[in-house]
Amino acid sequence: MSNDNPTNTLDLRSLVKSTGEVEVSLIETPIGSPEENEVVVQIEASPINPSDLGLLLAAADLSTAQATGTPERPVVTAKIPEAAMRGFGARLDQSLPVGNEGAGTVVAAGSSPAAQDLLGKKVSLLGGGMYTTYRRVNVAACMPLPDDASAADGASSYVNPLTALGMTETMRREGHTALVHTAAASNLGQMLNKICIKDGIALVNIVRKPEQEKLLREIGATHVCDSSSPTFMKDLIDALVETGATIAFDAIGGGKLAGQILTAMEAAAVQKEDGYSRYGSSTFKQVYIYGGLNRGPTEFNRAFGMSWSMGGWLLMPFLQKIGDEDTRRLKERVSAELKTTFASHYTKEVSLQEALQLDAIAAYAKHSTGEKYLINPASSAG
Amino acid sequence: MSNDNPTNTLDLRSLVKSTGEVEVSLIETPIGSPEENEVVVQIEASPINPSDLGLLLAAADLSTAQATGTPERPVVTAKIPEAAMRGFGARLDQSLPVGNEGAGTVVAAGSSPAAQDLLGKKVSLLGGGMYTTYRRVNVAACMPLPDDASAADGASSYVNPLTALGMTETMRREGHTALVHTAAASNLGQMLNKICIKDGIALVNIVRKPEQEKLLREIGATHVCDSSSPTFMKDLIDALVETGATIAFDAIGGGKLAGQILTAMEAAAVQKEDGYSRYGSSTFKQVYIYGGLNRGPTEFNRAFGMSWSMGGWLLMPFLQKIGDEDTRRLKERVSAELKTTFASHYTKEVSLQEALQLDAIAAYAKHSTGEKYLINPASSAG
Repeated sequence: MSNDNPTNTLDLRSLVKSTGEVEVSLIETPIGSPEENEVVVQIEASPINPSDLGLLLAAADLSTAQATGTPERPVVTAKIPEAAMRGFGARLDQSLPVGNEGAGTVVAAGSSPAAQDLLGKKVSLLGGGMYTTYRRVNVAACMPLPDDASAADGASSYVNPLTALGMTETMRREGHTALVHTAAASNLGQMLNKICIKDGIALVNIVRKPEQEKLLREIGATHVCDSSSPTFMKDLIDALVETGATIAFDAIGGGKLAGQILTAMEAAAVQKEDGYSRYGSSTFKQVYIYGGLNRGPTEFNRAFGMSWSMGGWLLMPFLQKIGDEDTRRLKERVSAELKTTFASHYTKEVSLQEALQLDAIAAYAKHSTGEKYLINPASSAG
Repeated sequence: MSNDNPTNTLDLRSLVKSTGEVEVSLIETPIGSPEENEVVVQIEASPINPSDLGLLLAAADLSTAQATGTPERPVVTAKIPEAAMRGFGARLDQSLPVGNEGAGTVVAAGSSPAAQDLLGKKVSLLGGGMYTTYRRVNVAACMPLPDDASAADGASSYVNPLTALGMTETMRREGHTALVHTAAASNLGQMLNKICIKDGIALVNIVRKPEQEKLLREIGATHVCDSSSPTFMKDLIDALVETGATIAFDAIGGGKLAGQILTAMEAAAVQKEDGYSRYGSSTFKQVYIYGGLNRGPTEFNRAFGMSWSMGGWLLMPFLQKIGDEDTRRLKERVSAELKTTFASHYTKEVSLQEALQLDAIAAYAKHSTGEKYLINPASSAG
């Protein structure tokens, strides 16, 4: 099989300048030859996940975004609010690659049997810097795709599937028996519904719009609460009484929702417990915040007793905690159910250049449920 | 030794009425004879702790407080804000005894040797309903006081000492090596300083006023940060860098302080870690909220990465978690150091009747640092 190593790759980069703006551009960099245990993958599909946007856009104010450069080498700049700049000390004036995960074809391989084995195969990849035409990686970062899977099928094999599985794993490991999920009509939320239906886990979905409720009911969701409904708190408490869910995963972060979930869990617990305790119920209630769709402050009034916890949840530390063997088990399930439980849907496929057009940025930065972009660097003009 | 069982006790009661007000009064109730393993204690000292106020005053609006009744049987009523009423469903229209802990003399005892052994002795007690002239309890709820200790010395043997010890225990058990405490000039905070100095634990004290900083420095505190100072955040970050504290116990609850502590811990962690991570430092940061001196909403802007947790902390569930043997170990330390490490100071000693005077209520309900009331039911007119 040919071992046709390209010389350069076209790389999407995000640069936060100490002058208070972010610059996103495409630069050509050398790839280097694969070491013994490395391969070079031509990236053909890489999703724009909510978890990519922080690194890509650096919390910039997109109303100030300006397009310069050429059609082949577009450059976008935007101002970063002063408050957000304070968090960027460690990345100042460094040009950073972007893109957590992707999939493509192995076009060159090092001398090891494991690397040679992958030559010509379609693989999915994790490890950052996937918004690029070619990516050199260790074979351990690659997962061969099933024969009938395209690169687009395999592009989202890690972040959403493992996050959704991480939620039900965390639920079990921490002694809960049912769970709550917010922004529940997202790609991730739909996967979580499919997992829970398949595994017989009760899931309370919280959405923000009636059409999102409709979407989830159509894929078989039983409990869907619309936070825009005047009966939201009552609906949520009823669903919590019915399911006994005492752990929630919240993608919103800002605003009052995380606290409302704890308050509703407490109301459901009090319905089941006898007698008054001035410190509230003894039922332990957990909300994990894993996203920040609302960047505003989190606010809650602690009307949920003393047995509660709110905290951050992140995929990589979770996988480190459960260890290699359990991580492998989760990845094998993703591979086995790639075209069913873990199928992703994209509204638009774009080249690297198209991903830097202002109207595209405005669309994918909105985090709208159902709006999901896929970058195909292989379709990008060199 | 005489076994002189009184017939009745004068009991302080708090009653939340469904009409939306709290009524605090004194009622006479029969004590009953002690069972085999029970004793009757004449209560001579019981502190008004912040943890008693929720049950006693039911979050009532004290500007609406009215005094009625007679000098011997005063009655206080006050309106409860509608929002607070929602949490009181389970205690509606039930007259509840108040007072977590106290101390006094055993005046009657059941037939068991353990009960008979206590007759005539001074003991401290835990178990609620201590704002009363006589209390019948199981011997297991009693701890004999050292010979040189008065009832006032022993009145606060449980809540503050075990809470302070519970904080350093929790710190160790959860893998932290130094801690932060807020409202740190309180009786509890002073105890915590004495424990930490004795045990060589680095403690970062957060106070709200310069005179509180002075008080803590005088008892030997090294790290004291005044949240009213314009350099507060810088001072706090410096103290956290120096001590490495990654766990905090917060008595305030409402407002922005809990979030500021996490933000400062993150800034201290980032100073010690290399390289940029879009998800913040990998240092796990914990804030436990154990009080509610500020009843307003808790608010934070999540400017502290993803490795954090905020949650409720309560003494009784903590003691249940560590088990009988470790609880006994903590109690023995309290007993051994009752007049040194765990000495409490009171600004005023009042009878049950005096505790129901409007000016007294206004004073002890303020939660002012240094203002601490002790009820002596034995001095109460019958």
